[in-house]
Parts: sequence; structure tokens; C-alpha cells
Amino acid sequence: MITTKSQQQLRIIPLGGLGEVGRNMMLIEWQEEILIIDMGFRMPEEDMPGIDYIIPNISYLKGKEKKILGLLVTHGHYDHMGAIPYFIGKLGNPPIYAGGMAKAIILRRQEDFPNQPKLHIIDVKDGSRFSIGSFSVEAFRQNHNITDNYGYVITTPIGNIVHTSDFKFDSSPVNDPPSDFEKLRDIGDRKILLLMSDSTNAEEPNHSLSEKKIMENLDELIKNAKGRIITATFASLLNRIQQIITLSEQYGRKVSPEGFSMKTNIEISKQLGYLKARKGTILSTREVLKYPDSKITILATGAQGEERAVLMRIVNREHPLLKIQRGDTVIFSSSVIPGNERTVQYVKDNLYRQGANVFNYKMLDIHASGHANQDELKEMIELMRPKFLLPVHGQFSMLVNHAKLAASSGIPEKNIVVMENGQILNVSKTGISVEKKTVPANYIMVDGLGVGDVGEVVLRDRQSLAKDGMFVLIVVVDRQTGRVKGSPDIISRGFIYLRESGDLLHQVRRRVVEIVNQSAGSGGAINWIYVRDNVKNKVGEFLFTKTQRRPMVLPVIIEV
Amino acid sequence: MITTKSQQQLRIIPLGGLGEVGRNMMLIEWQEEILIIDMGFRMPEEDMPGIDYIIPNISYLKGKEKKILGLLVTHGHYDHMGAIPYFIGKLGNPPIYAGGMAKAIILRRQEDFPNQPKLHIIDVKDGSRFSIGSFSVEAFRQNHNITDNYGYVITTPIGNIVHTSDFKFDSSPVNDPPSDFEKLRDIGDRKILLLMSDSTNAEEPNHSLSEKKIMENLDELIKNAKGRIITATFASLLNRIQQIITLSEQYGRKVSPEGFSMKTNIEISKQLGYLKARKGTILSTREVLKYPDSKITILATGAQGEERAVLMRIVNREHPLLKIQRGDTVIFSSSVIPGNERTVQYVKDNLYRQGANVFNYKMLDIHASGHANQDELKEMIELMRPKFLLPVHGQFSMLVNHAKLAASSGIPEKNIVVMENGQILNVSKTGISVEKKTVPANYIMVDGLGVGDVGEVVLRDRQSLAKDGMFVLIVVVDRQTGRVKGSPDIISRGFIYLRESGDLLHQVRRRVVEIVNQSAGSGGAINWIYVRDNVKNKVGEFLFTKTQRRPMVLPVIIEV
Repeated sequence: MITTKSQQQLRIIPLGGLGEVGRNMMLIEWQEEILIIDMGFRMPEEDMPGIDYIIPNISYLKGKEKKILGLLVTHGHYDHMGAIPYFIGKLGNPPIYAGGMAKAIILRRQEDFPNQPKLHIIDVKDGSRFSIGSFSVEAFRQNHNITDNYGYVITTPIGNIVHTSDFKFDSSPVNDPPSDFEKLRDIGDRKILLLMSDSTNAEEPNHSLSEKKIMENLDELIKNAKGRIITATFASLLNRIQQIITLSEQYGRKVSPEGFSMKTNIEISKQLGYLKARKGTILSTREVLKYPDSKITILATGAQGEERAVLMRIVNREHPLLKIQRGDTVIFSSSVIPGNERTVQYVKDNLYRQGANVFNYKMLDIHASGHANQDELKEMIELMRPKFLLPVHGQFSMLVNHAKLAASSGIPEKNIVVMENGQILNVSKTGISVEKKTVPANYIMVDGLGVGDVGEVVLRDRQSLAKDGMFVLIVVVDRQTGRVKGSPDIISRGFIYLRESGDLLHQVRRRVVEIVNQSAGSGGAINWIYVRDNVKNKVGEFLFTKTQRRPMVLPVIIEV
Repeated sequence: MITTKSQQQLRIIPLGGLGEVGRNMMLIEWQEEILIIDMGFRMPEEDMPGIDYIIPNISYLKGKEKKILGLLVTHGHYDHMGAIPYFIGKLGNPPIYAGGMAKAIILRRQEDFPNQPKLHIIDVKDGSRFSIGSFSVEAFRQNHNITDNYGYVITTPIGNIVHTSDFKFDSSPVNDPPSDFEKLRDIGDRKILLLMSDSTNAEEPNHSLSEKKIMENLDELIKNAKGRIITATFASLLNRIQQIITLSEQYGRKVSPEGFSMKTNIEISKQLGYLKARKGTILSTREVLKYPDSKITILATGAQGEERAVLMRIVNREHPLLKIQRGDTVIFSSSVIPGNERTVQYVKDNLYRQGANVFNYKMLDIHASGHANQDELKEMIELMRPKFLLPVHGQFSMLVNHAKLAASSGIPEKNIVVMENGQILNVSKTGISVEKKTVPANYIMVDGLGVGDVGEVVLRDRQSLAKDGMFVLIVVVDRQTGRVKGSPDIISRGFIYLRESGDLLHQVRRRVVEIVNQSAGSGGAINWIYVRDNVKNKVGEFLFTKTQRRPMVLPVIIEV
């Protein structure tokens, strides 16, 4: 086989995770071989009502199923593996490389999706090596806020690529050994052609907080709390959950996990032996509530004010067993995801109203991000000394600021590339270039059972309906005379309170009858499409004049 | 007249601003006299699509118009005076006491509302004293981020009340003299019965930043910027705007205000002589763009990523004159209001994409809040040494934390009251108590021309329409036979993409015909309400099974 120049290039194609937080999915293509790193989803934006998740667009991979050699999963967070059930079957069910925790979460999630192929999961451990087609892959442990988080060194025919996974450096983490700088230095010594590094905290100065500091502050709070403790955190922050369990044991508290995902994740971790808890520490809420208040810890979901999570149900007095009582201490051990500030404030206000003491990360360091701040990102660059750098995982502004950091750390600007999803990076031994051509990387929206069936049109309609509601006019017309029979029906929702708007509706009906009858009166064949548009426009204008609102006006003309 | 004990009590009734940020309105009632402090609106919550503003409920004042002696306006921000045009006529057009800046903004806003009575505005200056019924009122200057901001000492028959307005202590502010501690100490010496103090930053530790520090950092940025400067801030932060103009002049830049509210506020301030700018500094954008890039400052609105503001139009390439070019420096001199984080990130990302350098308050102190942090709140308490404290202005959690601060400053807990809107505080010389009875204080929503006509029902419909859309079924039935004529019409928006759902729609139509014909077939009079409910429920269930979505199903049965 003659290899042309272009065939001696690697192609790096991000399908998600660049210019956004979440939905991570990266392709590495070498001639007829494709390796995938991660397959995640993300949460919808605020202007996407009704949407459950957004997943990558994999149409580029259509027809290339045979080339896909495998999926490397970095860790068990949904933004890195949550899209697997939507795609894995369509992609020819390639082997999945995943650490123990990620594997267990992938398998558990798979149960929610019927008719899935049996997954082929290959266990990844620190130092595991795999030969996958022309690639050889080595996994290396990285600290994050879930255990079994792996970066990958991928040896390709033209050089070594390192993908950091989400990471931070922590010299005293929980449930995991500290960052293994020796190993990282060793990897750096192998000569790294391309580094793909986590940018999530590239706009945060200094060094991320150590979990040790968090532990100390949580210790202080739990030690001093007189009543019950309710903690609110992500079910995915398994290391944080471990801290709370350990400290609760230390102060004689029993712990009850509340919320489906919390119970599931704790169960998985216990089965894998990752979660350390004495026998009898973890009880059901019903059992825990038999103990005195000072011996109770409730591990709840809902730190983001999620509508159906435990904390929201407690605050809204909808929880069957738990109500806030004076003297409860509620600890938010989580940051607030941008966009959730108002709901979290709602929860916080109502906790105070019901007599709880509230602590959050703004008042005390009781949450640490799982991502590297600027100092750590620089350190990673110094350890790896890569020829080329591709910032991954983060909003566009984070990628740019990561690139600026790298430039200030001595990587020549021409060797740093800030990319967007769907762009194609060609990497050779000597240079990198972004192709003009792109592959589809738009949002694929998941709404209930529908994947990708909610598009621009449906979403725009939802936004419009939300703003001013809708106004359906049903006009029955006599086929013979072309004239309106009876009074038009009006169905309106989300526009105004109809019962108090009799006069307005009366005027609308009168206008509609006039418009339709005039069209009929003009003689000749009636152009009903024209009449309908006319009704729509005139009623729309009329309603706007009267209310300054623009409901969606939908006229229906029925000939009988 | 025999005065009973209850008649010797003051009644303090907050109609807005407690347990929320904005919509400030406070009543002070003594026997047959009512004094109002502020009359503001607030922005809607995220789950209130289509709503423009929320204003207080003033139904308590209905029938009491003659008792209202006046409205004290603290300053010219909309959360303190924005509801005036909705209410002032209904309340018998009482006199308004306002500083020069607030007066000008009130009058300008009034122009947007036709058929308003002529306002009676009495000028307030630092030290102004007014005798209003049984009250005597003295205004005192307070630092904030707009000039002419006044706190009020209200001498009542039972003692002195102090309302701080929004405030912070600043020893080196912009456009205003520094905090007048001597005056405040003098007020405190008069023996204060009740202090109502701003709680907005009661959860922020230490002291607020001085505008001097902000000035230094802005100076650094503007000095070093090589290309054009675009600043994004609130049009209401007039002191910040002054800083940017002053610094621009210092470095030879011409300044162009962009955005309706920015232009209006600058014009008002200039007319009042509050805004200091050399002749020829402030130009139109068209004129400014004739200068070299290094001589241009654009003062834009849109720091919150507001949809129709200047910055958003620039970023979306919809602005007629301004496009981002490589080398532009964009300075966000504003904090991000909770809930706006994602839109601001969108703007920031797109500024970077288009080649701008971006600076915000997270990277550098280029914005200071206008509110007192914990140290200043304590200082205010120490200056006033009030017998009773009522924390005002802020989310419930902020009121609680303000109360905790006060307790730690030595005010006995029984003398501190955390209240909600609509509660009634009775104040006597010796004690305070909250009445069990409350007055209406719910949200009144403004949507277009409608005030209060969007209520729970309409809002719930909007939320529901936004989530899964709607599905209208129109069934024409033969009056004689009770059987369906032709095929039912379906109008659906925001649910699924209809063109690709032919099969689903076909199945729905078939089911509807079956349900209706079965009802008809049963003999006897047909209960159409029952049939309609039946169609609604069965179609709803069917659609949910097929899609896991719950559009609003609205069947219409037309007999012909």
C-alpha cells in the first residue's frame, strides 16, 4: 500500500465537549482505524424546554462502523459515558475500555434501555496496557471526584498522544491515592506529540482545593451540629459521599442515602468495595429516624435545586418521611451549576424559613471542584512537555484561556489549537492544521423516547408558546354559501385568563366572521389558504394592539 | 379622641422587597396616616415566561387613598421606583419625595405611560427636612452606585425610624462625597427606635470594594488596551459610567453610548450636571468610528447577556455599525445577576470566537457591588444603636443572616425581626410583634398591557406548553347520527415534528374516531363533555406511551 502524506496524518475529531461543558466525545482516526474517547451527554440549555439531554451527532461515523476499534471511557460520569446506550448498538457494539466504577455505572444504566446488545467491557486499571489496532494504549490514574478515573497515553504510528481525562492534582485526596507525579513525569519523558487536557477550570486562578481541606471543614460542621444533618450533593461525587459517611461514623451518626441515584451509586460502590462503611452505618431513612437527632445524617440529592430531587421534596413538604425541623443543619457540599442559582436560592430560603441552619461553599470550603485550576494546568503542561496542545472539555472561553496559559508556559502559539466540535485536526510529526471541512456536530436532543426528533422548529414553537401562549380559532363554514355557520370556537391557553376576557373574545369572533364572510362574498372560488392567513394576521394584530402580546394564532376553517 | 393601646402603635407593612431582591415597597402606618417608602418592580423568575415585571399588590391600600400622605423614594433605580406609573394614579396621586436624579428618571419613565396624572414631586437633598402629617422626615445621603441616594430618618410620635436605602460605605467613591460618618453618628445619637437596613449583601464577608480600587483596575485596562474598548455595564450604574468616561478622556478616547437606556441615562445625568465630560468626548457611534481604534470607547448595555441589548446584537452580528474585530477589548463592569450566568457565558464565548479580549469581575476587580457587606452592616448597627432591627431588601436567607449579624453585634434576639412581605409589624416604644393577620402581597405580573391578568392558571399553562407543546383535535360529528364525519383535524405545535410523524397521527385519528363513534353507538343522549374528556385522556395516554411526552391535549367536538 502506498501511503500518501495525508494518510500519515492522524485526524482528531471532537464530536462534543469543546465549547461546552459535557457531551464529551472525541475521535482519533488513523487511516482505516477509529478510536473513540468518551461518549457523554450534557444537560439542556434554559431555552430548551422539555428536553432531557443533549447528545453528540454521530452521523460522521455512519458507514464507518467497521473501522471503530473501541471506546476508551475515562470515568463514570454521565458527561463521559451517558450517551453509550443511544449509540453503542448503532456503532457495531465496539469493545468498551473502562475502569471498575465506570463499568458498573455503564452496566446499571444499560438496564434502563431495553433491546440493547450485550456490552463488551474490558477492565481498565492503573497501568493497564492494550494493543488496539495500530494504537497501543496505556491507562494512568488521575484524581477527580470519582474513583477509577483514567487518563490515556495512546501510542500512534506518528507519536504519543495524552488525554488527561477530567483531573486535578491532589496530594491528599479521599478514597484514592495522591496524584502520581512520578508516573506522569515518566509519561512526559516518552515524548508527547499531542496533549489533550481538561479546560473546565482554566479560568480559575491558583490551585484547586485539596479534599483534605474540605474534610477538615466538614469535620468541624459535623462535630458541632446538634441536630440532624442533611447533606446535599451530587450522587456522582462519590468521594465526597465517602467523606460524609466517614465523618458521620466518627461522630456516631447513622447515615441514610435518599434519592434514587444516591442509593444506586452507593450500592454500586459498596459492591465494588470502593465505599468504606462499617456494618450498620448505612440504614434506610425509616430506620435512621428511630435514632436521636444528633445521631442522624441524611445523604440527599438535590444540591442544584433539581425539581424532583429529595431536597426539593423535603422543602416543599412532599417527602413522606422527612420534614425540616428547627435545629437541622443542611450542608450543600457542591458548587452551583451556572443557571441553577435561582432554584438553589429558593431551596435555601425555604430551608431557613423552616428553621434549618444552612451551610454552602460560599460560606466555607466544603466543596472542591474536581478540575485543575491554572497552576495545575501549567504543571500538567510542564510534566508532559507536549509538542502540540489541544485544550478539551470546556466553554470556548475556557479553551481560549487554557491556550493563553499554555503560551505563557512556553508552548509556541502555532502549536496550540483551539478547536470547535466538528472540526478536524490533522496531526503529523511536524505540524498541526485544522481542515476547512467540518463534520456534523450539532445538538441531538433527547426528549422522552424521541432522540433527535425535536429540532429547531419544535423548539422554537415551544419557546413561542411559553412566551404568550396560543389562540386556536375554529370556524365552521357552509360549503355552499361560503359563509360562517354559528359562532367561531376559541381555544386559548397561556395567553390571558379567558373567563375575564369575554369582551375581547367577543370582538375577535365578530372580526373573524367578517373576514371570512367578506372573502366568501367576493364571488368565485374561495382561496381558503388566503382566508386562513388573513384571519391569522388580522387576529394577531388585533390581539397585539389590545394586549401587547403575540400568542400563536392558529385558525382552522372547516367546511361542512 | 381616646387612644387605645393599639392606636399608639406604628404598623410597618412591607408589600415587597422582603424575601426577594427588588420590588421594594414599605408602608409606615400611624393611626389614620400612611407613609410609603419606595415603589419598585422586580424582574420575573425563570419559570414565568412572557412576564415583563412583577409589581407589588396594593390591594391593602384600596379605600385608604386619603390616608396616604406621601411616597419617599430612596433613589432612581427601578427596583425602588419602577412601579410608580402603575400605582400612583390609583393611590390618589400623593406627593413624591425624591432626589434630583430619581426625579428625572421618574419623570422620563412617566412619558412611556399615557393618561397619567401630573406628578407632584418634592425635591430631596442631603439634610432636607419635611413635616408630613404626624411624621417629620429628614433625608441623609448614602453611597450606592447611583447618585442622589437617600436614607430617611422618620420621627414618629413614638420614636425615630431609620431606613438606610440601599447603601455601602465608601471612603473614596466616584461622583459622590465619601460616606458621612459624622452625620450618621449624629443620627444615631438621636435614639433610634427601629432601623430598617439593606440586607442584599448580608451573606458577603468583610467590606465591599471601594470604587477607588475599581478605578485603578479600569485605569490599568484602559491604559493598556491597544484597540477599541467596549464596556458592558448597567445603564443604571451611573457612577461606573462616569469612571469609564473619565478614564477614556484621560487616554484620549472618544466615548459613544450605545443602547436606549444608556443614552437616556447619560442624557439625564448630563442635564442635571451630574455627569462630567468635556465637550466633544461623548459622540455618536457613527462619529466615534471615524477615530483610530485606540481612541474609541463604546459604552454598551448588555452586561447580563440581555436578548435585545447592544452587546448581544454585536455578538450576533445584528448591529448596524459595530462588529467585533480582533484586538477589541471587552470589559464587563458588572456582576452577573443569578440566573443570567449561561447567557453571559454565551456572549463571552462568542466575543472570544470573534477575536476580542474579555475581562470580567472574576478576573479582576472591575466591579463593586453597591451594597454593604457584613462589616459595613455591623458598622451601621453600631452607628445607629437601634432598639429594634428589621432587615429589609433581600432574599430570605440574606434577611436571616443579617439578623444573625445583628445578634452577634449585641442586639437582643427578641428585638430583631425577620419578616415576610404582607406581614404586619406592630412597633411600640417598648416592644415589637408581628400580627397573625397578613395583607395580600403576592406577585402581580405585568405582561404587555396587562397588569395582573396573568395569574397562576395562565402561567401554569405556559410552563406546560413550553415543556411538551400542545395537541388540538378537531372532530366534526353528525348531529343526527352522533358519528364522526370525515377525518379529525390535528393541530400540534411544540410536541413532535409532524411531517415525520404520519404514522403516529394516523393512529391517533383512528382511535379518536373509535372513541367518539362508540359513545354515539351506545344509544340515548350523548354526553359530549364525557366524550371529550375520554378523548383527551385516551389520546394523552397513547401519546405518552409512544413518546414519553405529555402535550396539552385539547379536543374540540363540533356538531353539524
